[in-house]
Amino acid sequence: MITTDILIIGAGPTGLFAVFEAGLLKLKCHIIDALPQPGGQLSELYPKKPIFDIPGFPSVLAGELVDNLMEQIKQFQPGFTLNEKAETIDKLEDGTFIVTTNKGTKHHAKAVAIAGGLGSFDPRKPLIDGIEFYEDKGVEYFVKNPELFRNKRIVIAGGGDSALDWSIFLADVASEVTLVHRRNEFRGALDSVEKVQELKKLGRISLITPAEVTAIHGKDKVEALEIDIEGEKSIIETDYFIPLFGLTPKLGAIAHWGLEIEKNAIKVNNALDYQTNIEGIYAIGDINTYPGKLKLILCGFHEATLMCQSVYNRLNPGKKYVLKYTTVSGVDGFDGTRKEAEKQVVKAIE
Amino acid sequence: MITTDILIIGAGPTGLFAVFEAGLLKLKCHIIDALPQPGGQLSELYPKKPIFDIPGFPSVLAGELVDNLMEQIKQFQPGFTLNEKAETIDKLEDGTFIVTTNKGTKHHAKAVAIAGGLGSFDPRKPLIDGIEFYEDKGVEYFVKNPELFRNKRIVIAGGGDSALDWSIFLADVASEVTLVHRRNEFRGALDSVEKVQELKKLGRISLITPAEVTAIHGKDKVEALEIDIEGEKSIIETDYFIPLFGLTPKLGAIAHWGLEIEKNAIKVNNALDYQTNIEGIYAIGDINTYPGKLKLILCGFHEATLMCQSVYNRLNPGKKYVLKYTTVSGVDGFDGTRKEAEKQVVKAIE
Repeated sequence: MITTDILIIGAGPTGLFAVFEAGLLKLKCHIIDALPQPGGQLSELYPKKPIFDIPGFPSVLAGELVDNLMEQIKQFQPGFTLNEKAETIDKLEDGTFIVTTNKGTKHHAKAVAIAGGLGSFDPRKPLIDGIEFYEDKGVEYFVKNPELFRNKRIVIAGGGDSALDWSIFLADVASEVTLVHRRNEFRGALDSVEKVQELKKLGRISLITPAEVTAIHGKDKVEALEIDIEGEKSIIETDYFIPLFGLTPKLGAIAHWGLEIEKNAIKVNNALDYQTNIEGIYAIGDINTYPGKLKLILCGFHEATLMCQSVYNRLNPGKKYVLKYTTVSGVDGFDGTRKEAEKQVVKAIE
Repeated sequence: MITTDILIIGAGPTGLFAVFEAGLLKLKCHIIDALPQPGGQLSELYPKKPIFDIPGFPSVLAGELVDNLMEQIKQFQPGFTLNEKAETIDKLEDGTFIVTTNKGTKHHAKAVAIAGGLGSFDPRKPLIDGIEFYEDKGVEYFVKNPELFRNKRIVIAGGGDSALDWSIFLADVASEVTLVHRRNEFRGALDSVEKVQELKKLGRISLITPAEVTAIHGKDKVEALEIDIEGEKSIIETDYFIPLFGLTPKLGAIAHWGLEIEKNAIKVNNALDYQTNIEGIYAIGDINTYPGKLKLILCGFHEATLMCQSVYNRLNPGKKYVLKYTTVSGVDGFDGTRKEAEKQVVKAIE
């Protein structure tokens, strides 16, 4: 059982920043995310794209913003349960919560903050009979750990940035990389398309287009794929099949937690502290809704901050918290580190 | 008459960021501030101090944050009325406003956003008889334009960072710099204290301590100061007297605009759009109050954003605004510039 003060569901920018604000209040956080790495959409969907509306950044790459946030919260040593989805929640008599993931991991927390963005990202699966049987047995919808593919034969399917970028990356890792796409044209960053072209000429990536994977063969695991190339079937032997057809966000199991839902978002009390209809459960960032709501990262930062204050007040009833400014008070990490403004001196001049 | 869509009162981080969010909605902004430069407290009180709780910045100097925000809003060409205080407001029959400053500058705006922080910063004045007579006639409480002191004799009074830093800076500008402080000890950043020590040894700054300026002499303007050095009076000739004894924030004239005030802050409706009791007048950032309010810069950013949306809806009744993401839509400046993410290509690989 993992225990924490605030259990955050969703490791996007809002969830990450909540760790910092909680830390200032001496509250520990643990984050659950369905994706293999922190950052949510920013890491998974557009790490190399610039965002122009984060206050103080005329332009920042999404991946950079995540790196900055990870650096900012490092002092507060958040725990992570990655690659798992929050599935059930139980409120105990003492007002605390047990959240269990789809893999059975249990988390005990004094408060729960749902920062799930648009929901957990489920991969769009190709319509191949029996593909579920091969999941985790050679079929991988995410590249969670590139080392899995070291010196293996892999087939990637897809025609967008993910398919292009992972083909490039894994060309140095796998023994054979085959990229299958149902059109001749790829859609992605110019340099990615050009790089794949180059690796193809060097023989490091085999390209099969226009084509589709139509069947998977193998007794206990993936051994070969049937590929339809303009009506002609052929068989290609492989160790792994990685379909990268994008992700669809789903509210998922959280939709059944008894929270008030409105248009696929969780209703919260207006701005006071972004608490849901269940005391102790908050919803922050893109996943919540209230009058005037804007789905912007900068709004999630504000909501995360007010949520942390509310949790603090709930856990310390009657205790008056005096807001401290980091410039004045510094930041004391749970790891023993301290950040502070340079001290002023009082010194005579002779 | 200056005309604009949103008139922002206060050029601190919240007011500056509002320009950006307004710009995304094609609304023009003009900012009034009592200080000589944008940035509010961050520029005036602690430009060289780090802030640790701006999301995405593990640490950022206050002055740097202001520079970044100025860069971020540049595309939207905000107007500035600096060195003036908003004094009166008149609501016209068409729902627009005229705001007049203490110097008589008139601004006509469709909406007004008060982003005044803790209020306008008034200098703490030394208790010297008749000092008001010499204001703008040799007595300056701010260094608004260092060139004013080029090749002039100046006397600075004070023992903190401002007194130290301006003595150092103006040692290269003025013909004579005298620093008067009532103690031998100065309180400031170590390197500032050391630099003043060094300049004193080089004869570039004269130091008079422990001492106080007790009278100002001069017919039409400052000509000399009477200084009390441990009970001994002496006279020093000078062109300028710059007392730097800190600033006190004051709500000032805004307190009489008919807005609901609670504990020196302006009450706003809770989180919907931060509008005050007067339709069309908003209060954002540290100057407002509502249940759960936290006086943090990051909250001001959020409030500024919701305020801009509200103004947009007020000016475009019935028009449905669809939120656009800057990563997807780019940012079109009023200056003709465009920022955008690198375009995706659709390209065949041969």
